Amino acid sequence: MAALVGCGALRTGQRAPSIRTLSRQQNVSTATVVRAYQELEAQGLLEGRPQSGFYVRRPAELLPLPGLARRHPVRSPRAAPAPKAVRSVGLIERLYASLNDPHVIPFGAACPSADLLPLPRLNQGLARIARTVGHAGVWYDAAGVPVLRRQLARRAMAWGCALGADDFIVTVGATEAIFVALRAVSRPGDTIALETPAYFGVLQAVAALGLSVVSIPVDPRDGLDLEALRTALATHRLAACVATTTFHNPLGCAMSDRAKKELVALLTEREVPLIEDDVYGELAFEGARPRPAKAFDRDGFVMLCGSVSKTLAPAYRVGWLAAPARFRGRAMQWKHATTLSTPSLTQFAVAEFLSHGYEAHLRQLRRRLRAQVACVREAIAATFPEGTRVSEPRGGFCLWATLPRGFDAVALAEAAFERGISVAPGPLFGASGEYANALRLTCGHPWTPALKDALATLGDLASRQLGRTVPRR
Amino acid sequence: MAALVGCGALRTGQRAPSIRTLSRQQNVSTATVVRAYQELEAQGLLEGRPQSGFYVRRPAELLPLPGLARRHPVRSPRAAPAPKAVRSVGLIERLYASLNDPHVIPFGAACPSADLLPLPRLNQGLARIARTVGHAGVWYDAAGVPVLRRQLARRAMAWGCALGADDFIVTVGATEAIFVALRAVSRPGDTIALETPAYFGVLQAVAALGLSVVSIPVDPRDGLDLEALRTALATHRLAACVATTTFHNPLGCAMSDRAKKELVALLTEREVPLIEDDVYGELAFEGARPRPAKAFDRDGFVMLCGSVSKTLAPAYRVGWLAAPARFRGRAMQWKHATTLSTPSLTQFAVAEFLSHGYEAHLRQLRRRLRAQVACVREAIAATFPEGTRVSEPRGGFCLWATLPRGFDAVALAEAAFERGISVAPGPLFGASGEYANALRLTCGHPWTPALKDALATLGDLASRQLGRTVPRR
Repeated sequence: MAALVGCGALRTGQRAPSIRTLSRQQNVSTATVVRAYQELEAQGLLEGRPQSGFYVRRPAELLPLPGLARRHPVRSPRAAPAPKAVRSVGLIERLYASLNDPHVIPFGAACPSADLLPLPRLNQGLARIARTVGHAGVWYDAAGVPVLRRQLARRAMAWGCALGADDFIVTVGATEAIFVALRAVSRPGDTIALETPAYFGVLQAVAALGLSVVSIPVDPRDGLDLEALRTALATHRLAACVATTTFHNPLGCAMSDRAKKELVALLTEREVPLIEDDVYGELAFEGARPRPAKAFDRDGFVMLCGSVSKTLAPAYRVGWLAAPARFRGRAMQWKHATTLSTPSLTQFAVAEFLSHGYEAHLRQLRRRLRAQVACVREAIAATFPEGTRVSEPRGGFCLWATLPRGFDAVALAEAAFERGISVAPGPLFGASGEYANALRLTCGHPWTPALKDALATLGDLASRQLGRTVPRR
Repeated sequence: MAALVGCGALRTGQRAPSIRTLSRQQNVSTATVVRAYQELEAQGLLEGRPQSGFYVRRPAELLPLPGLARRHPVRSPRAAPAPKAVRSVGLIERLYASLNDPHVIPFGAACPSADLLPLPRLNQGLARIARTVGHAGVWYDAAGVPVLRRQLARRAMAWGCALGADDFIVTVGATEAIFVALRAVSRPGDTIALETPAYFGVLQAVAALGLSVVSIPVDPRDGLDLEALRTALATHRLAACVATTTFHNPLGCAMSDRAKKELVALLTEREVPLIEDDVYGELAFEGARPRPAKAFDRDGFVMLCGSVSKTLAPAYRVGWLAAPARFRGRAMQWKHATTLSTPSLTQFAVAEFLSHGYEAHLRQLRRRLRAQVACVREAIAATFPEGTRVSEPRGGFCLWATLPRGFDAVALAEAAFERGISVAPGPLFGASGEYANALRLTCGHPWTPALKDALATLGDLASRQLGRTVPRR
């Protein structure tokens, strides 16, 4: 059987002969066939589906990882002027808008499905608070409601960070946290080091603030390329470094503790602040929650940005910035200037949820996201054109696929939109329009046949674009 | 009696003889005394208080208005670099923080008391939506939830503005609307025309965005000085003009329709966008809601900023920007970069409230604010040192008092804070620390003896500071 799969006689996704058939053909007992199939399943070659049988699986592990953003690490990275974000706004708006359309298959935005979130309990808590906390409609605290900041300080212990309630500024999602942090340490025209690929929201903020960018490649397995950062530090005066150290968006990789420690040391030596995007930090597929780089920040140069948008309720827009004392005044000034204060009711509701039940919810969420990522990954493996590479995330729910040279991800995204499928094309993640042949697919929605069909459609569209034969299904 | 009041024999605030006493003293019928008192009340010299009698009132109208910000309109206004906002952040933070402390007498922040707001109904609506609108926790629309934008378009008709749902971008309060609008039309280093005095939140945004300022004086009765603006337009290349045309903060004045029309024409001629802060627009003390300048915007140069923070629920942080088509793309880009999208639940709740009951609430709110402003104004007249001038607002709930030369408003605010009274010192409202002798007092809280006592305390502190005799009370 392994040989049949290996040589391609049994195609990926094809149903293996039934136990009864094989038992007759090979003249062995059904128990022997079951044992054999279970063995092959354990090896990852077959997949058992309840009341359906066994199917041939091309293990996603066989897919090569996407290469480094730049194969030959640039010795003297050049600072590029701020990316032109206007061009992509229409596309990004459409990604988000499609979230509200139940007819669109949502691989585009990194927003978990309502089905995975504890919205009923959260909303009920909110409803109770709205009815009972009289001052919730007039509460004004630019730093955030104290009860939430206390809960965040408590949770920070679990992240390995010694932070007090007064170290936090509650923001309108991590978006505002990153925006405020960036502006607190830079002026228009300054240069920052930014991971590449990068979340397009950060690229928008960078463009909006008129900053120049030195791109630091992210290795799909090890995270930020510290050698490249070292070179950048030696050749540029950097106002900040922005990086997603744990479960990178879009790559899903996490830096090791050692690498995080080195990152902080490198930056601290030159007094360059690190703006750490930690929105996926709680979503490890295995083991304990990794510590953020902030946990290694002895000298107060790391600004930690987080939110509950990936774990509880994206539209609550509750995020935070933990800013060291030296940056706090300026961060508060910017928070004031941008939104004055964060809406209070959702803060109270999140604080209540964090106080109990959050851990149990996270355990379940992690398990489900891991399963969903595996399903999407395998469907890509089964249906995308040969030569496709896909990332192997260790947490979060983003996948990054690169297709063979010549592939036009923007054209694919446009064609997919027309078929009711939302997907984020690679150029959104590059400061200079690179990644033309890459796609980010998010896996925040429970696996369904519709999702599987949509991935097959994407695969067909990609094959057609590349002039390949589209397999009949 | 009028003579007694006029010559000062009966002091402001003193109780007039009872009807019975006066009837005996003057040997006239009690009916005659009642008629006489009613006549004096109609003239504004006495004030009847239920079950307490008649009191001497120094009509606030007798107080002179504060002078123009600059007595001699500057012919060639100079652009000043962005104000240093960091210095004042601590003070501003304290103004807002004190809102949450029931022991502080709140004349500082411009936030209406919960007692004046329909929070129970609003919060109950929110609670119902939280329980029933399943997608409210995941709804993402950078422009805002459509049902709210439709309600805003409907209300805009009442403002005399022809705006559709797609003209609005829902923001995190008017603060974000002004921030986004400013950045959409300017770059760091640009010069803008800004009214003076100006709301300190706008000064913070201007500082944060690195803009230079040409100050345009606001006349306490007629609003923005169009002659000064004309001069500024002739001598500077301006990226925008920012003005609160209706019920100015802190002055409370409103420009006439004719002046608004001229303002728009002046700016349109030079293609300079007007960023109109309309947060107090609904709070007229008398007559219909004045039209904003936006109502006269034929050519798409006015960006209208509003919110429900002064009328429904400040901590809901629901505001909006109505941006003309030419600026909308850039405004959306900035909205994305700053906060991605506005929290959804509060938007749904506000939309529901706007759909019915809002007008009735506004009628009551206007009446109450008008009464509160009158009370604070009279208490200032009665207890502040001679030479004090106070504004005569036609809407909103801010009062601007200027004290004699030599008065140090910041020192007074510090001393007041120590006594549990919050008040905003004048220098917060000037781009270059001017208005040292001015105070803004807000009147968002129902009149109580505690408020009256607090104003007497402020008056005493001011008298002491000026070396005046403090009257015994």
